[in-house]
Amino acid sequence: MPSSRRPPSEARKAFGERVRARRRALNLTLEDLAERADLNWSYIAQVERGIRNVSIDNMAALADGLNVELRDLL
Amino acid sequence: MPSSRRPPSEARKAFGERVRARRRALNLTLEDLAERADLNWSYIAQVERGIRNVSIDNMAALADGLNVELRDLL
Repeated sequence: MPSSRRPPSEARKAFGERVRARRRALNLTLEDLAERADLNWSYIAQVERGIRNVSIDNMAALADGLNVELRDLL
Repeated sequence: MPSSRRPPSEARKAFGERVRARRRALNLTLEDLAERADLNWSYIAQVERGIRNVSIDNMAALADGLNVELRDLL
């Protein structure tokens, strides 16, 4: 594995958990957030579980959809 | 453009500028940071210019290489 030297999922997990917590605090479904962030709901579900190596553009879209600054999701 | 509804480069630019500022504050060359973060130096140069839609794993690697928390680069 080329990137075996660093833990790949720690930042993903933290980000995903914060996205989920913030989404639930706003009483949004995955579908609601998908519409607000202009992303697919199943993609967001995978981000929340730390499965996806999410890009900064999509991170910014999720932060926008959750009405927070990106740094507050990290 | 499918993602034309949101500004794609604002978060990239801010992240890239902070990576560069922190790298220079540490007196690191692109090559130095490339070795510390286990990434290619030309890739990092593009991230610093906001050209790359950098992933969270690579953002975390850059933060590690710069001895900062990821949120401090956003």
